[in-house]
Amino acid sequence: MTRSLNLNPLAPQRFAEALRSLRERAPLVQCLTNIVVANFTANVLLAAGCAPAMVDNAQEAEGFAAISAGVLVNLGTPYQETAQAMRAAVRGAHGAGVPWVLDPVAAGAVPWRTSIALELLAGLPPTIVRGNGSEILALAGGSGGKGVESTAGADQAVEVAALLARERHTVVAVSGAVDQITDGVRLVRIANGHPHLTRVTGAGCALGALMAGFAGVTDDALLAAAAATALLTVAADEAARASHGPGSFAVALIDQLHLLTPEALAQRLKLA
Amino acid sequence: MTRSLNLNPLAPQRFAEALRSLRERAPLVQCLTNIVVANFTANVLLAAGCAPAMVDNAQEAEGFAAISAGVLVNLGTPYQETAQAMRAAVRGAHGAGVPWVLDPVAAGAVPWRTSIALELLAGLPPTIVRGNGSEILALAGGSGGKGVESTAGADQAVEVAALLARERHTVVAVSGAVDQITDGVRLVRIANGHPHLTRVTGAGCALGALMAGFAGVTDDALLAAAAATALLTVAADEAARASHGPGSFAVALIDQLHLLTPEALAQRLKLA
Amino acid sequence: MTRSLNLNPLAPQRFAEALRSLRERAPLVQCLTNIVVANFTANVLLAAGCAPAMVDNAQEAEGFAAISAGVLVNLGTPYQETAQAMRAAVRGAHGAGVPWVLDPVAAGAVPWRTSIALELLAGLPPTIVRGNGSEILALAGGSGGKGVESTAGADQAVEVAALLARERHTVVAVSGAVDQITDGVRLVRIANGHPHLTRVTGAGCALGALMAGFAGVTDDALLAAAAATALLTVAADEAARASHGPGSFAVALIDQLHLLTPEALAQRLKLA
Repeated sequence: MTRSLNLNPLAPQRFAEALRSLRERAPLVQCLTNIVVANFTANVLLAAGCAPAMVDNAQEAEGFAAISAGVLVNLGTPYQETAQAMRAAVRGAHGAGVPWVLDPVAAGAVPWRTSIALELLAGLPPTIVRGNGSEILALAGGSGGKGVESTAGADQAVEVAALLARERHTVVAVSGAVDQITDGVRLVRIANGHPHLTRVTGAGCALGALMAGFAGVTDDALLAAAAATALLTVAADEAARASHGPGSFAVALIDQLHLLTPEALAQRLKLA
Repeated sequence: MTRSLNLNPLAPQRFAEALRSLRERAPLVQCLTNIVVANFTANVLLAAGCAPAMVDNAQEAEGFAAISAGVLVNLGTPYQETAQAMRAAVRGAHGAGVPWVLDPVAAGAVPWRTSIALELLAGLPPTIVRGNGSEILALAGGSGGKGVESTAGADQAVEVAALLARERHTVVAVSGAVDQITDGVRLVRIANGHPHLTRVTGAGCALGALMAGFAGVTDDALLAAAAATALLTVAADEAARASHGPGSFAVALIDQLHLLTPEALAQRLKLA
Repeated sequence: MTRSLNLNPLAPQRFAEALRSLRERAPLVQCLTNIVVANFTANVLLAAGCAPAMVDNAQEAEGFAAISAGVLVNLGTPYQETAQAMRAAVRGAHGAGVPWVLDPVAAGAVPWRTSIALELLAGLPPTIVRGNGSEILALAGGSGGKGVESTAGADQAVEVAALLARERHTVVAVSGAVDQITDGVRLVRIANGHPHLTRVTGAGCALGALMAGFAGVTDDALLAAAAATALLTVAADEAARASHGPGSFAVALIDQLHLLTPEALAQRLKLA
């Protein structure tokens, strides 16, 4: 099935244009995310050029989603009140035509959040779903009868991702050594990035937030998810050169997200 | 009206004395703040010489406020339980004569927290209110009939701030390229700082916490708010020299808050 | 009483072996911790070689504890929902024979969390209790009739710690300039570390998390608590050399936790 997908249809120049738009328009990104990565996510968004707003209570989430450029729903540490806020934010985003990103952290491994993720996926569909291979398989298993495979790599998950994307009219981004992003018809494969990204908590979560930002400045959700992935992983390539371990890498990553130009992004992008 | 305010009545040496007191007395600062900036705020307070304590549940907030040197109430991510805790902390602070600082994050832009901010402001008045121009205008609009102007700068907000300060017997600090702090009679204008402060999440929130710390070691709330502003922005001037982007800037800012001496603070302070 | 304890019975090579096991097995560590330090704790665990998971809601905590290698319960910012989750996680850990660590942050200073700490301690006993002298005395006061002494140092607390360890069949770790860890029979004293550890929020909290990680790879809880202490404080020695203040120290600490080899840990360990 993977062979039938249109591979890497987006030219590097498209990525540069998306980053240029992001910097010019500074999209307001509402994040309903977890307590572990809220700070890092906000700093990643600010460094990249977005305007983050962590509005995640049940009273304000729906209304704020309607005035945001993009919304992130991340299931890292759900609580009763924030889970209600997530449902409200999705309603608000849909009502106003605002794109939203679902990051089903640990779906498949823990039951409550898995049920929330499946509920959200089955309802008003997300613009983009972002996760690692296991998380994507867990979602597909719920909606399409596939089993959960907790050690699934990105390569194994891409066929399931493409099916899920077609079924739910969404874009599915599967993180891994090679990141793969598909809308069920097209497939973008990006080979940038560094193992340190797996040693900094919240790198994946921040990627979901960046996708919500890019989705606020382009109508092509595949480009939004791919440009966010490219920005984070190309910045990671640069950051790895200037760092001694995961601590200094995380600091340099924020610096590089700020410093990276659209031209450099297009040049250093490695489509696989 | 601004012309009628007594401009920059505090000599630089007063700022140095305030920092000396802060370092000697290491005030216990209770923070009821948001999940995004709690870590950064605690590290800013520790580096400056305060003893932070994030006691923000409804059971403990009132009693702990009474034994704190200063209390911060920051509305960045309010929830049902923490909003109750904020009300309790204000009661505890007032009952024991402990100064407290209100930071009405995003007041005017989001309804629930705006109503909490107005409720807190109308009740037992804060020692200091800290915000950007829009937030201060939103508070004044609620209490004094002024409209909300979401893009208001610090300069436009200072007249409203002075009126609010007189009405509520408080000090109002308006962040901006030039920071302005007034008690309705006096006005301190500080021109230190660096644009990177707007690219690190929580710089403003941490400033509110520092104000609560300084308010714990001086009876002059105008001096407390001004000294906190001076400390953060002079440290930012130094940090900007040692950094490549907002990531390394945030790290260097913590270092500089620890390293800055009272003498250097007085020397580098730019009253405008 | 301290003289009757078997002093420093663990050879440095045992610490090296424990770190080797940690790196090889990458234990899954469930953290129910506070909003201030969740990010830093996760990054410390990742850098050291563990797999952190902050599962702290009441629906998922019990089940997740049963599949974790170690569980941390930290009382830094308890709320109604997370306090329930802590009780559930302890049940889950006990039911599955999973070690768990209790960090009674600010016990003795604030009533509600003190009662939760005493309740948890009196119930299914923790594998390790970690705190500063005051916190340990507060717990012992509750279970053994000793009074709370808020400025107690590690030295004064060790006798109480040994008694508590024997009574509750647990290991008690008391942080201080010299860290002391006892199971009531043996006593390990470690003299590594740097004052900057007290100027970075969450250093102690992250230590508790590391103890949960080491407890997941060794059956000797004394060794687990001691190896975690050694790893953090030896890394701190190295980090202090490469830093200008608490900001750059925290970054370098994460780097060093990643870089430190088992051999270097054994070599640089200072048993006191």
